[in-house]
Amino acid sequence: MLKYLVAVICCIFSFAPLFAQQHQLMPVPKEVIWGEQRFQIDKGFHVVLNDTSASRAGKAVVRFLRRLDNRTQLLINKEFFRKPLNGVGPYLVIQYDRKGLLKPGEEESYSLQITGDQAILKAATDIGIVYGLETFLQLVASDNLGYYVNGVTINDQPRFVWRGLLIDVCRHFSPIDVITRNIDAMAMVKMNVLHLHLSEDQGFRIESKVFPKLHLLGSNGDYYTQEQIKYIIQYASDRGIRVVPEFDIPGHATSWFVGYPELAAAKGPYSIEKKFGVFGPSMDPTKKQTYKFLNKFLTEMCNLFPDEYFHIGGDENNGKQWDDNKNIQEYMRKHNIKNNHELQNYFNGKLLSILQKNKKKMIGWDEILQPGLPNDAVIQSWRGKEGLKEAATKGHQVILSNGYYIDLVQPAWKLYANDPAPSDLKLSDNEQKLILGGEATMWAELVTPENIDSRIWPRTAAIAERLWSPADVNAVNDMYRRLDIMNIRLEEIGVQHIINQEMMLRRIAQSNEITPLLNLVNVVEPLKDYKRHSQGIPYSTDLPFTRLPDIAFPDAKEARVFKMLCEQLVMKKDTTAKIEIEKQLLGWKNNHNELALISRNIPALKDWEKLSLLLQDVAAIGLESLQKMNNRTTVTDQWVTDSNKKLKEAALPVQESELMVVESVMMLFQYALPK
Amino acid sequence: MLKYLVAVICCIFSFAPLFAQQHQLMPVPKEVIWGEQRFQIDKGFHVVLNDTSASRAGKAVVRFLRRLDNRTQLLINKEFFRKPLNGVGPYLVIQYDRKGLLKPGEEESYSLQITGDQAILKAATDIGIVYGLETFLQLVASDNLGYYVNGVTINDQPRFVWRGLLIDVCRHFSPIDVITRNIDAMAMVKMNVLHLHLSEDQGFRIESKVFPKLHLLGSNGDYYTQEQIKYIIQYASDRGIRVVPEFDIPGHATSWFVGYPELAAAKGPYSIEKKFGVFGPSMDPTKKQTYKFLNKFLTEMCNLFPDEYFHIGGDENNGKQWDDNKNIQEYMRKHNIKNNHELQNYFNGKLLSILQKNKKKMIGWDEILQPGLPNDAVIQSWRGKEGLKEAATKGHQVILSNGYYIDLVQPAWKLYANDPAPSDLKLSDNEQKLILGGEATMWAELVTPENIDSRIWPRTAAIAERLWSPADVNAVNDMYRRLDIMNIRLEEIGVQHIINQEMMLRRIAQSNEITPLLNLVNVVEPLKDYKRHSQGIPYSTDLPFTRLPDIAFPDAKEARVFKMLCEQLVMKKDTTAKIEIEKQLLGWKNNHNELALISRNIPALKDWEKLSLLLQDVAAIGLESLQKMNNRTTVTDQWVTDSNKKLKEAALPVQESELMVVESVMMLFQYALPK
Repeated sequence: MLKYLVAVICCIFSFAPLFAQQHQLMPVPKEVIWGEQRFQIDKGFHVVLNDTSASRAGKAVVRFLRRLDNRTQLLINKEFFRKPLNGVGPYLVIQYDRKGLLKPGEEESYSLQITGDQAILKAATDIGIVYGLETFLQLVASDNLGYYVNGVTINDQPRFVWRGLLIDVCRHFSPIDVITRNIDAMAMVKMNVLHLHLSEDQGFRIESKVFPKLHLLGSNGDYYTQEQIKYIIQYASDRGIRVVPEFDIPGHATSWFVGYPELAAAKGPYSIEKKFGVFGPSMDPTKKQTYKFLNKFLTEMCNLFPDEYFHIGGDENNGKQWDDNKNIQEYMRKHNIKNNHELQNYFNGKLLSILQKNKKKMIGWDEILQPGLPNDAVIQSWRGKEGLKEAATKGHQVILSNGYYIDLVQPAWKLYANDPAPSDLKLSDNEQKLILGGEATMWAELVTPENIDSRIWPRTAAIAERLWSPADVNAVNDMYRRLDIMNIRLEEIGVQHIINQEMMLRRIAQSNEITPLLNLVNVVEPLKDYKRHSQGIPYSTDLPFTRLPDIAFPDAKEARVFKMLCEQLVMKKDTTAKIEIEKQLLGWKNNHNELALISRNIPALKDWEKLSLLLQDVAAIGLESLQKMNNRTTVTDQWVTDSNKKLKEAALPVQESELMVVESVMMLFQYALPK
Repeated sequence: MLKYLVAVICCIFSFAPLFAQQHQLMPVPKEVIWGEQRFQIDKGFHVVLNDTSASRAGKAVVRFLRRLDNRTQLLINKEFFRKPLNGVGPYLVIQYDRKGLLKPGEEESYSLQITGDQAILKAATDIGIVYGLETFLQLVASDNLGYYVNGVTINDQPRFVWRGLLIDVCRHFSPIDVITRNIDAMAMVKMNVLHLHLSEDQGFRIESKVFPKLHLLGSNGDYYTQEQIKYIIQYASDRGIRVVPEFDIPGHATSWFVGYPELAAAKGPYSIEKKFGVFGPSMDPTKKQTYKFLNKFLTEMCNLFPDEYFHIGGDENNGKQWDDNKNIQEYMRKHNIKNNHELQNYFNGKLLSILQKNKKKMIGWDEILQPGLPNDAVIQSWRGKEGLKEAATKGHQVILSNGYYIDLVQPAWKLYANDPAPSDLKLSDNEQKLILGGEATMWAELVTPENIDSRIWPRTAAIAERLWSPADVNAVNDMYRRLDIMNIRLEEIGVQHIINQEMMLRRIAQSNEITPLLNLVNVVEPLKDYKRHSQGIPYSTDLPFTRLPDIAFPDAKEARVFKMLCEQLVMKKDTTAKIEIEKQLLGWKNNHNELALISRNIPALKDWEKLSLLLQDVAAIGLESLQKMNNRTTVTDQWVTDSNKKLKEAALPVQESELMVVESVMMLFQYALPK
């Protein structure tokens, strides 16, 4: 091995497959140069930092040492030192110039130089230090000689300055521990914006001291106190993460009206919405009282949230209440406001001046982009790349969320392929600079604290890499390889994306015996996009979210691996895959009898039984296809007709879920047909 | 089947084995009379309650409906109604007389009458309703016809009025979500006192607005704000649970002195203690300033906690600082205080008057029972039954904790056998009445939020049954049968006693492939009593609690079941057990090769490898013993010597843990020897 491999600037990994096989970094750093020395981690390992344990860097080091020791169990020292300890053990020196500010564009770079003697982590700001420590933890490996980090020089900085996760805490509330563990997970993949969607038709989720009926009547008791919000902000700040609040108005605001019906454009009374969708209630943008209220309330919230950005929502206001309100119609005529878009624009102008008075920059969804919108309003683009382009060409900063809707349970490769600034968008350099980055959006119609983590993670790590790493880091298989590693590492900071699945299975089965259920659910995914809402189940906050589609993970790994095996056989004619395919198919075929023993006395498992039978059928067709491949003359018309029919049936949703191996078996089936 | 089985008052189950096999109730109610009708639960099931959803009963019903539907997925209505809905479905009528007060001796009884037509839950107080709803949820069963409850009449009330769980939040802090999920679990088994041990050498865990340096300097940032404490109190109150605070003084108080060294009997400075044990620092009981401080502080806390009881600790004050302090010695001479016990008694008297002024009853550990202690002080007995008896005979109310130290990881049967008022204590009726009940104590030297739940649950359910059910409910096997059911049901309210184990295994293995580790850990227990502290590991709050003894569950079920099989064979000469025993032994024997594949590159698994080899040896001896049983003439002296040696070696601790199947295999081994 060469002493140092030459660095390929921008993205070394796509050109260095040898190391691409080894490294466990996610997101991939901008520049990585591997050395050949081994930095051995032993009990004497210590950190050198000239700081207090109350600073951002100091706290990060304390967390770092704890996590490192939790994993390696070397019983290392949990304190840090001003100078390396002589002859005690390997050490990591940490140096930074200044405290980082929490705003987009702040210096986030860091460098990490690890040799056999020492490791040095340098950064302009302590935020870079936070990132560098995560990178170090990702580098830790082990073999029979102990724990170590491979010698390396890393120079890293993000591609985009805005790498966000939106959590909708309204449709279903996320208690504070859900928020903090997700902040930790964000920090692990170097995301830097937590966007809290705090008000909705289904709930008003933050304490207002100025207008307490907002949270007291608008929330069923599930809201963050201001003390808790301050705690979240500090917790995020410690990890270099900003917290951007969103109050979605004038639509999506039913919960405001429960306590303050006078804000609405139609008479009350209102009650908290339980169903999901777009609803009529909207603020009356023509009343002075509305702005008096919003001025007081938004000022309260502007003071609570230190971030310089403030999100006012603005999406999906259907205008029905405005159309039906005579006073509003009269007002529009009088002021020459031609339509609801213009009226909302007028409303937004008022909001903007409140925010500006509070020294905040306004963010809104696509819909706020109307003629006359001041240039310093930021657009969050959810409807498509066209909106992104339009915003940028009109001079607005813009954040991409379209394509990052993780609630729609698309696979990681699809999220990964979604670039906020793809070259085919044909933007000028200046326009390109207006694209701040992107935000994964965890809309919460169909999630609860039990399964929200498994909807966010690990897929959001793929988005995080898209937003951090160079654009040409895009090898899907390598992303998945590293995502599998991250999947397990995410657990070490408390994310419950894996552990709750078996708990949910035990709850249905009322037993420890869940292996057959697990075998089935491993190849099932919840229906994607908005299809779950059209399967006859009247989703509302009242429903139990403990059913098959709530338990099944998005992007089923077992189905993905099986598909790769089938492609290996069918496309690459690599018959070595056959044994694995056969083993897998046999397992699925034989699983049903075991599952039926459990399900027969559990009514909640009736649909599982149905799906399990379909899997049995599909597996049988797969096995038959494998046989017939060897001798295609055994294929009969009857078999083709029957199999086709069964495969089509198995491709249909059951309990808002789908079997993810049908397509692969279809591939085997067609391959078995005489040419 | 008879239409009604005759009830055996007091405890029907011990006399009705037929139903003892069926029922899933824990704690066992005072009186149960089974009917033969079936109360079928379908989508139309609804609750009838003349109340608001903001009341204790109303909130309990909302939680009840949610949990029922989460399990059955029938999509039942989440609201409740003033009258039964005509022809809609089965219903549960709830009636109570008044709001229950949170104090010992409050009426806690309820009755539940379930026929095929309707279910009626009645109680004097809403606290009884909370219990009755838990009982209903435990009764829910299912078969191929659906979900149902067997017709039944239950009249239930507790044997003891004080059924507590102490959580030490000092040695390791338990964030608020740990507390709330454990409150929910307590409610499931009808416990009614959460005792929070809030100050210790290792941490001061509550915000004081009067003396903020207590929590700011005494806690490393991990403490409850007063807002959080109010939240916990309300959360517990909703579930009929009292919150009793403990501030352990004059010893165990190092963390107080970090911010206020002037309180101590020796000069500072002090820093937060990281090690475990009994330490010297103690308050100076001779200074007026001490009482001025305590008066202010305790008054603040008395106002914060509404419960009428207040715990001042008082244990393990070793008196060293008092002995070494000239002023204290001088004071003692001057005031004719003969020894440290008398001095602490003097101190306690001062505390008592502060508490009395605040209308609180004082509780303290055994040590406060000194001549002159006023009768209304309550003794919490941790040192033994003698202390319990002494307190009662001296006229004090008393709570038993000795024998309920769940941190010492004794098996459930042992905790279960520990009666707070056994007949051999020979107390008069009046003395007997002074025994309020008991408290499980979760001392937190060796637990973190990751594994505290698995130290508390499910074993504490056995203690809960001891404290609730009639004294003659004591069949161990039936207790274990029901404990296994509770074990899974406890997960439905969020207890993480099961799920975190596999996460901890994945963290060590850095992989999904953990089956061989699980096979091993399933027959391992952490060392019991205080033995973990004498194995050479310098335990402190700095250590990682992610190791083998932190992962292994107390009371390993697989080892317990294996032991029963061996007893079946050896003691009852039931050879049908042989097949199962052999299968189990073979599994353990073959496990090592699989485990070694994982452990070879994971240094943290070195001890696991050692233990796995021992298990392999032990299993081999077991298998050989099975063979030789059939033909004892094949037993050679060499085999006996070698096996004996290996079994003895395997009985030794490895990494503060022990193999729990050695004793059982020893039984097989000795059975195989020629008589």
